Amino acid sequence: MTYKLYWYAGSAAMAPHAILHDIGGEFELIKAEGAYLKSEAYRKLNPNSTVPVLIHGDGKAIYESAAICQFLAEQHPETGLSPAPDDPLRGQYLQWMTHLTNTVQEAMTIWWHPDHYTEIEEVQQKLVRESEARLDKLWQVLDRHLQENGPHLCGERFFACDYYLAMLIRWTREMEKPGEHYPHLNHLVHLAMARPAYQKMLDDQNIDQNLLPDMI
Amino acid sequence: MTYKLYWYAGSAAMAPHAILHDIGGEFELIKAEGAYLKSEAYRKLNPNSTVPVLIHGDGKAIYESAAICQFLAEQHPETGLSPAPDDPLRGQYLQWMTHLTNTVQEAMTIWWHPDHYTEIEEVQQKLVRESEARLDKLWQVLDRHLQENGPHLCGERFFACDYYLAMLIRWTREMEKPGEHYPHLNHLVHLAMARPAYQKMLDDQNIDQNLLPDMI
Repeated sequence: MTYKLYWYAGSAAMAPHAILHDIGGEFELIKAEGAYLKSEAYRKLNPNSTVPVLIHGDGKAIYESAAICQFLAEQHPETGLSPAPDDPLRGQYLQWMTHLTNTVQEAMTIWWHPDHYTEIEEVQQKLVRESEARLDKLWQVLDRHLQENGPHLCGERFFACDYYLAMLIRWTREMEKPGEHYPHLNHLVHLAMARPAYQKMLDDQNIDQNLLPDMI
Repeated sequence: MTYKLYWYAGSAAMAPHAILHDIGGEFELIKAEGAYLKSEAYRKLNPNSTVPVLIHGDGKAIYESAAICQFLAEQHPETGLSPAPDDPLRGQYLQWMTHLTNTVQEAMTIWWHPDHYTEIEEVQQKLVRESEARLDKLWQVLDRHLQENGPHLCGERFFACDYYLAMLIRWTREMEKPGEHYPHLNHLVHLAMARPAYQKMLDDQNIDQNLLPDMI
């Protein structure tokens, strides 16, 4: 059967959606937002009510965007998006995929939802500022890494983790200092946008990636 | 060269350390704690100053515990700790490894360090209580999953993600409702402890895993 991806525009479905275009076969997009995410039907696919969910094989569901990216990329080695287990870059690839989802992405969660943590507005403001400060440190480390070892996270080759980073950078565009203000992070997004698969995903999702010019 | 693992007792090095014992060859443990984690030498290995770091190959460093677990398990398929890319369980395995590190583990971060988020003691207490409530929901989902599809995360076979879950459960032992109070989570830790490699890791780290009796 063909893959099915549950998504909504600009969500964590962006990176897996781009990879599906790299794979190049047919796939089905199923919009999942609002109340439907809380429905019993959707919670059977993902009890955490988040997108994306990928349906593969004979109907199996996987959630967690970073897991779906890894899975799709390694099931389709012809895309070149996943270093094979015996590739010297394999360890770095796994490190970046994990770090992006458990540290960088999570540092953004409080910025998006300070009200999940406290009702006191003054403290919400403080949480938002501290989230930005934490992200700034993480972006600095990544920007320096790309400068010294780039232009991609693992060097010369573009992997699934680079799509993931481009997606995370987009999510910070309304912050005090968006990810694209760091020159090597911005360059990485330009590299993603130069790929037809990423452009097709942006078109499907009706996203205008209004990015700062490339500074590199 | 042999693997080297930077660690301290009871940290996120627990799961990779157990896997190294499953692999069974020689490896070197290097204690890394306190001021050393902030040193320039250590920050060259991991700019985020956390453990574990794995040194492999001809001196390459990887950080992020979940990435190290995946890497070691797939480099050593003879351990049976990683389903191969063509295994029908591969997608689920990647989902659980990602979910444990980016959602369950991150829900604990605020509990451990509410002072990173606010100086107001009353709000710190609130953050701790909300962290416990969020974890309770996640544990309930996992406990039900293990009841219906267990006894391990992917069913009959024990994988690296099960070590990871056993480690996370241990980290909640001082919470209002520790992970081991959920019967199927507790059973999972008993299954980990039945493995000689996990026991050797506990011995090396001088950890007394004083667990509730198995309820299953």
